[in-house]
Parts: sequence; C-alpha cells; structure tokens
Amino acid sequence: MSTHTVDSGGVDARGVTRALYGNPQTGPFYVGTAAAGDTLVVHLKRLRLNRDWADSLDDLVSRTMGPRLAARAHGLGKAVRWKLDRKRGTARPENPSLGMKDFTVPLRPMLGGLAVAPAFGFPPISTGDSGRFGGNMDFNELVEGNTVYLPVSQPGALLYLGDAHAAQGDGETSQFALETSMDVEFSVDVLPGKSIATPRIESPTHITALGQAGSLDEAIRVATAGLTQWLEQEYGLSLSECAQVLGTSVQYRVANLAGRNVGVAASLEKQRLARLKPPARP
Amino acid sequence: MSTHTVDSGGVDARGVTRALYGNPQTGPFYVGTAAAGDTLVVHLKRLRLNRDWADSLDDLVSRTMGPRLAARAHGLGKAVRWKLDRKRGTARPENPSLGMKDFTVPLRPMLGGLAVAPAFGFPPISTGDSGRFGGNMDFNELVEGNTVYLPVSQPGALLYLGDAHAAQGDGETSQFALETSMDVEFSVDVLPGKSIATPRIESPTHITALGQAGSLDEAIRVATAGLTQWLEQEYGLSLSECAQVLGTSVQYRVANLAGRNVGVAASLEKQRLARLKPPARP
Amino acid sequence: MSTHTVDSGGVDARGVTRALYGNPQTGPFYVGTAAAGDTLVVHLKRLRLNRDWADSLDDLVSRTMGPRLAARAHGLGKAVRWKLDRKRGTARPENPSLGMKDFTVPLRPMLGGLAVAPAFGFPPISTGDSGRFGGNMDFNELVEGNTVYLPVSQPGALLYLGDAHAAQGDGETSQFALETSMDVEFSVDVLPGKSIATPRIESPTHITALGQAGSLDEAIRVATAGLTQWLEQEYGLSLSECAQVLGTSVQYRVANLAGRNVGVAASLEKQRLARLKPPARP
Amino acid sequence: MSTHTVDSGGVDARGVTRALYGNPQTGPFYVGTAAAGDTLVVHLKRLRLNRDWADSLDDLVSRTMGPRLAARAHGLGKAVRWKLDRKRGTARPENPSLGMKDFTVPLRPMLGGLAVAPAFGFPPISTGDSGRFGGNMDFNELVEGNTVYLPVSQPGALLYLGDAHAAQGDGETSQFALETSMDVEFSVDVLPGKSIATPRIESPTHITALGQAGSLDEAIRVATAGLTQWLEQEYGLSLSECAQVLGTSVQYRVANLAGRNVGVAASLEKQRLARLKPPARP
Repeated sequence: MSTHTVDSGGVDARGVTRALYGNPQTGPFYVGTAAAGDTLVVHLKRLRLNRDWADSLDDLVSRTMGPRLAARAHGLGKAVRWKLDRKRGTARPENPSLGMKDFTVPLRPMLGGLAVAPAFGFPPISTGDSGRFGGNMDFNELVEGNTVYLPVSQPGALLYLGDAHAAQGDGETSQFALETSMDVEFSVDVLPGKSIATPRIESPTHITALGQAGSLDEAIRVATAGLTQWLEQEYGLSLSECAQVLGTSVQYRVANLAGRNVGVAASLEKQRLARLKPPARP
Repeated sequence: MSTHTVDSGGVDARGVTRALYGNPQTGPFYVGTAAAGDTLVVHLKRLRLNRDWADSLDDLVSRTMGPRLAARAHGLGKAVRWKLDRKRGTARPENPSLGMKDFTVPLRPMLGGLAVAPAFGFPPISTGDSGRFGGNMDFNELVEGNTVYLPVSQPGALLYLGDAHAAQGDGETSQFALETSMDVEFSVDVLPGKSIATPRIESPTHITALGQAGSLDEAIRVATAGLTQWLEQEYGLSLSECAQVLGTSVQYRVANLAGRNVGVAASLEKQRLARLKPPARP
Repeated sequence: MSTHTVDSGGVDARGVTRALYGNPQTGPFYVGTAAAGDTLVVHLKRLRLNRDWADSLDDLVSRTMGPRLAARAHGLGKAVRWKLDRKRGTARPENPSLGMKDFTVPLRPMLGGLAVAPAFGFPPISTGDSGRFGGNMDFNELVEGNTVYLPVSQPGALLYLGDAHAAQGDGETSQFALETSMDVEFSVDVLPGKSIATPRIESPTHITALGQAGSLDEAIRVATAGLTQWLEQEYGLSLSECAQVLGTSVQYRVANLAGRNVGVAASLEKQRLARLKPPARP
Repeated sequence: MSTHTVDSGGVDARGVTRALYGNPQTGPFYVGTAAAGDTLVVHLKRLRLNRDWADSLDDLVSRTMGPRLAARAHGLGKAVRWKLDRKRGTARPENPSLGMKDFTVPLRPMLGGLAVAPAFGFPPISTGDSGRFGGNMDFNELVEGNTVYLPVSQPGALLYLGDAHAAQGDGETSQFALETSMDVEFSVDVLPGKSIATPRIESPTHITALGQAGSLDEAIRVATAGLTQWLEQEYGLSLSECAQVLGTSVQYRVANLAGRNVGVAASLEKQRLARLKPPARP
C-alpha cells in the first residue's frame, strides 16, 4: 500500500494546504480480514520525505520543566523552519541563530501517528490523542523497516496514519518535531485471534512494548505489563522468568511527553531472546 | 587509585563477609584539592569482576507493576544465583528453570553507588539513597571508560563507591541486580569553581545528565534542567537553542526504579554537538 | 429550568431504560446570551432523588491500590444495590453482608456530570471525560444550593448534565457511586467577558477551584492556579498575598479518582475572605 | 508529660535561640513499655502557644506550581512575620501589604513533627523527613485533643516532637507555616503487639490514616491501604465491605506538600462507623 501523508498542519509535498490544521491523517483503511480481537501487523516498508523543509518550534513542553526552567521560558515557542537535505540525510535550521549555525541532525523519517479505531465504549478519538489503539504515539521508532502491532477493536481495523516527522528527539519536547510531509509505503498482516494489551514495535534488533497513560509513573507500568505479556505469549516464560529477563536486560525509554498521554517504551534486544525459543510469529 | 568493593551484601571476592549487609561502600576518599562549589570528576578507569557468581532476585519492583501484575506477583522475590563467566563475558542463572536454561546476558560491570558527601543542611544519607550528590544511582552507564561529574559540597569531597553489579537492565527492576564484588580503578580531577546542578556522566559517545526525584514525572524535569545547564555552560547555547537541540536530539532513559528516588537520564550524542563549539573540558 | 436526569446506566425514575448505558446526559441547553470567553454560572437550585434505589460496586479504582491491595482485590467489582430512604435521608445496601448490616450513609444528592461544550481544537468529548469545560467531574460538592462556574467556549455554551449520585465519598473510589436518577432544577447566569481558567464551585461557606489532569501531582497545580486566579480577579490580591492566604488557609481535597483525569479541589472558607474586599459577583 | 518545643528555627518562647536552625525537636522520650511491633498512642492533651509572633514566608512550594505560576513566582519567598493574638485566637501579618491589611486567620496550634525512631535498616532520619514512623508530617490535624498512633520499631519507641505551627493551611504551601514555639502536654499509651502500617490520627469526629510518599499518586495508595487496614483490624470488615464504606464515605485531603515526601490523609467520620462494631480500642 502506497500513500502520502500531509504534515501536521495539513500541508503537502508542494507546500499546498490540503487539510485543515490539527493533525490530519490519511485513512482510514479497511483491512478486509481484520476483526475485533485480532492483531493488526503494519510493516513500515518505506517512509520517504518528499519536500525540503519542515516546521518546528523552539519550545519545551511543560512536562520537561521544573519551576526554574519555567521561570525562564517566557520567550520560547517561536516557529523554527528547518531545511531538509535529502541527499546528505541531514536537517538544519533555515535561519539559525549564532549558536546553531553549524548544528545539523540526521534525518530519520518517522510517523508520529498510527492507529486503529478504538473499541466501542471509547469516545471518538482526536488524532492528537493516544492509547491502547496506538494514535499520536510520537515515538521515534516508527521508522522505515520497523513493524507495529496494534490490537484490532472494530471490523476492518480502520487503520490511519499521519503526523510525519523528519526527525525527533525522545519525547517530542519541542511540541512540534520537524513536521513535514511524506511518501509512505506499508503492508499489513492480520494475526487472527491474537490479543495484545498495548502497541508493540519490532525493529531488526529490538522488541518494544509501548505504555501510554497520564503520567510517566503510570505509563511505565503499562509498558512493563505489555512487555511481560510479550515474553509470556511468544517465549512461553513464567512471570518469575520474565522478572529475571527484565532485571538484567530491559531498556526503558521515554517515547512521548507532548500529548495528553505520555509514552514509555520497554524494550529488549532480540539477540538476548534468540536462544529462548523460536518466536511463534513468522 | 585502585580499590575493591564488596557486594551489596558485604561479601568480598572470596565469598567472605567483610561488612554488614545494607549496601556497604568503600571510602570515603578525601580529595585534597576539592572544596564546596567545585565539581569532582571521577574517571572509571577499570571495573573488573573478581569472582564467578552474583546474587539476584526474580522480583519486579512495585513501580513497574500495575494492579494486574501485582495481583500475580505473589511468588516473586526469590533468590537467584548467577554464574559469571569472565572469560566469555556472560552471565547465566546457576540453576535455571526450564524457560531460562539457554538464557545468557553479556557482563557489563558497573557501580550502583558513587557519591560525595551531601551539603550541610542535608541529613546523613543512607548508602541506599540518591540525590544531587550522586549516591545509589543504580544507573547502568557507570561502567569502565566513563566519567562521572559530581557537585562537591564538603572539603575533600568525601568520595565513596560500591554496590557493584555484573550486569543490570534499566531501572534495576529486580530490586537486586547481579550483585557481586569488583576491583575498581579510578582517578579524579577537580574543576575548581565549577558548579553543576545534577550528576553528569560522559561516555565516549554521549553526555548525560541524571535527574533523581520521588517520581519519574519529577525526575525528568531535573534531568532536563541538568542537560540544559550543560548545553548552556559548555556550549554557550541560549535557552531557545537548547530547546531546538533537545527537540531533535535528546534521549531519555529510565535509570533507576528501585530506590526511594527514581532516576531519569537525559542524553545527547556527542557527535551532534561536536561542531557547536569545542567543549571547554579537556 | 427543571429537568430530569437518568442514571449513568440510562435508567429513569421508574426503572425504565431511557438511554443506552455509558453515562447518558441531559442537554445540551443553549444559553442564548452566552458567548465564547464568558463564564456560565449554574445555580443548582434543587437536586432531588426520584426513586428508591441506586446501583453501585464494591470496587476500588486502581489509583487507590498499591501492590499489596491489588494482590487481594481479585474478588472486587461486584454489583451492590442500595436502598434509598428518602424520608430519613439515608442509604443502605439492599442485601448487606454481615459486616454491613447496620451501615447507613446520609443521602447527599449530587451531579457527577456538568459541562459546557469544549473549545474548538478539542475533539468530541466523552461524557465520561473531564477538563477545563467541566465534564464528568464526580465531585461531591455539586450539590443542591451550590453554584458552578464554567468557562464558555461555544455560542450558547451548550450546557449538559447527568450522572446523578445519591451519595459519594471523595474520589468515587468504587468506580460507581450510588448511581441513581434525579429531578434537577437549575438556573443560569452569564458573566460576559469574564474568563476563568478552571471550573469553580461556590457553596454557602467555601469557594473552590477544581483542577483536572492525568495525575494528582498535576491536578493540584491546576487547582492552585485556579484558586490563585480567583483571588487575583475577585479580591485584587497580588501573588505574594495569594501565597500568604493559601499558606494559612487553603484546603485541598481529592475530588475524583475514577476517570481518565483525576480531580483535586482547592478551597478557601469565605469567612476568611469576607474582610478582604466585597466580592464583585452578586 | 509536659514539655516545650522551640520553633523550627530553634527560637523559644522568649525569642532566645536555643538550638540551631533546621527543625530542632524535643526528645527523644523513652517509653519504658514500648517494644518493636507495638503501637504507640500519643494523646495531644494541650498545645498552647507561648509567644505572640510567628515566622512565615510568602512562598509557594514547587509542587503547587505549574509553568505559568512558576514564571511569575520570582519575587516570592520573602519573610513574613505574623502577630499572634492569643486572647482573640487570631493571627495577622505584622506589616501587611495593602491587600492583607484586614486579613486574619484563626489560631489552630499544631505540631508539624511527631515521630518515633525508625526501624533498623533505615538510615538516620532528618527531622525534616517523614515516613511510616511519622516525622515531619506537617498535617494540620495534629492539634490539641487529637490522638496519634505510630508504629514502634525500637525499644522505648524514642518519641520526639517539634515544629510548632500556630496555624497552617493544607500542604504547608508557603514552605514555612506560622512557625512558633509552644507548650506541649501529652500522654502516651502502648498497644502491645498491635501492628499498624502507617500513622493514624483520631479526632473526636474522624479517624484518619496518613500516607506519605514521593508523589501524591503514591501517597494516596499508602493512605488507602492504611485506612483499609484500620477497618479490617478494628471493625472486622472484609475487603469488599471496606470498598463499600470507602466508596460512599472516604474523605481525602492533602496533608503536606512541603517536604521530600508528600502526605495524603484518608479519613472517615466516626459517626458513620459507630454502628458497625464498638471499636476494640479503649
């Protein structure tokens, strides 16, 4: 499946506004074989930038600031436009202030948003919100080559995606990452009857469960539960064995600080798990 | 400076109990030229395991568990002894249960504890506690080759160290990591008149500020303040520029979940900062 | 204005299901003179129970439980029906277990939900959600005789209400309070051009600002900001003076623990403020 | 037992500095019959102010401030001296700014600190710290006529007290309450073999369990566990019955925001419990 996504302001590859601001998404895609209770597997086959600029801010989200930083933050929140050099694979501020004139960052195109329709009983979800269904996860591991697993709650899954970022630090601490448009190619599989508690991301090297909740202290509990479930389901470990694996090997990163929910990612290196049992998944 | 540290149970390289349990430390070392208001630089030159076993638990600390995991955790907390294969650089449970029989982890010796005496006005500090002075940071980046910066509050700094771990996942989620004894070689420098807000760790590839507080949501604020201070002090950036660097590049990891304080580490790749300005430090 | 509200399961005074479950509300009411940027004043003139039973649970919401309670909570969450004795003003479980056979609580009818339409840019809001617009506040001070102030974001305010409770402890810790139907009489005023940051509640004795956020540690900041704004707007105090009033006199209660947001209420006795300045409001 | 306590700056009734600053305490008192595992009952028989002034600040502790308030708080933290009118039972700023010239608060003398020695394994505790052993609870229900229960961990309990406040809002949001000296009269009982999880306070009208932890979201869990234990131990309720009582009747207040730990108080009216079972305690 090949598609495009406008940026979070609704602007496309040519700089034309195609949708209203407020994080417009592409989709929903109806996946014919997906039913509630299944898991949808989304392979991010190609995520390619299709223009040479991105919009950002010089901001710090409130969750990063204690009283002292907050007292100094009055001037922050200004627009910063970045030039994207797709040939070299780097980005830099278009009109850098003195201290930033030699600052470049590697491009690492990612999707801020990837979601399925939530379960009945949930309200309509803003494209800026996140939860068990995925959503505006703003996690910089949703990059080309990685695979995302989402729990299906509605017939056809109703997949949608958007909020392309040319690059993003952990947590999207500037509220806007390098917001841009993107060409997206993906394929989907359905794991019938497979139920997962929380979004999962698989890279060539790591498995990751993502916990999203109203505070970091809650989100890390959700992430740990998700990763434990993964070890139990796919590797047949007991809870005692999970505790031994996590205690020696878990990696916790902060995925997102910019939304109503925050995200914490709990990861394990696949190499450490390789000898436990061949994963059941293809 | 060459020394040894017993394990957190007070047991040395030969299995002899040398100190009471409760996380005994080695030191304090009086650093002749260090005075309050300086920064102490501790180079971890060699951290080498000196025995072939470690003690751990199959536990999950309460900060990792939501209600559902907690309801299933009744059997956890049992002792697990690990064999350390120093030649191969791996560890494995000595009597693994079935699911763990092929599970090994790479050895990555680290110091759970590294501290200076706290400021006047602070109470005597348990070796299990942490704060601006360092302490029981349980952060798995205190490894050989890395450098730790701590704010000096007392004449002579009064450096101490201990709580050697053969390996540890993020957060020390099993309450005991692979607790063992260690040979330690380190050297110190003093940066006179240099004041830092929070512990800093420098590796060959990253700079890291560590925030320690009573919740993850507070600790990430302390870590962000520490990393921002670093960028301002060493790279001369304005707060607006710091926000742009963090927004594209910051990495947040959970360092510690096992103590009264938790830890969050805010890091930047040194390569991204290389062209900003030659760091002032040697 | 006189109306009725069904209970949170959609059942009316006669036990007839009038709406689907999921916290149906009564409204929205279009308030002709209300415009974005105004404050809507809702006087709760009469809240009267209109049937003799209520539904509840024997539950503890997850935000109240640490690991030990969670490990013992497996049997909780069962339905408990309560008899409401409107003449005596008390409620008691209909089929009490032995320990509860003499337990009665005073009736104190309240509205769990009272809201206006949120601002543009917000998604459609579930009737189970809460925020600056009010919503499913589940705060047991929304009782007869009290006045609620909500910030208007849409033409006509679009007021709605529901989720009647016959009685509720702080936090609605059992997930369902004593859920029942109710006759409701209220009147509204509009304060044109008056902007408030967060819902306010005024009783004969107290003024209260309600903070609603993803954790108690955030919600108390929102509540404090709201109460400080009140003192600044209505009593002309400086921030230093606000700090002196709060330090000696603020009362903080936990309003709600049962939703996606929690609530913290910051209150002051009106008597303490009486001599500061006659409040500007009628 | 009759004694005196200096104020948190070490100044006595006559304005003479009797101890260094840093919250000096009176004690420890060795209670001959108290042993580890018992509960110490402290009856606060008389708490009487013995001078006519108190020291305070016009501050807002960081836990009360979001980014916007923090950005405006630069001038806060100044000393404010209060006059105590013991005859009228009121306090007022000695040199009030214009807005505060008619502001008075009722005197309600309380002890900020009341503690026993902590258990082995705990470090020496600062008189500014708090925990299961009580400590610097800064809870404005430690007033004359109330009774405090603390878990004994050492022979003789080693009771100490101090940090007298002439009045204090919830949370001690100004960092210093109205700090003053006090005449204190108390008596103690020992409940042999009675183990309690967290400090308890009993007033003529309420029973209260106090949870103290690094965040409000954790402290409320400790408080709920403590109150549940009380209902189970003294009223013989099952956990299901506790949930019904809490859901209809619990009151949650924020006790303390000014220390390393915060405090949340979970309370029940004694009148509601009166018919459950005559409490076992004298």
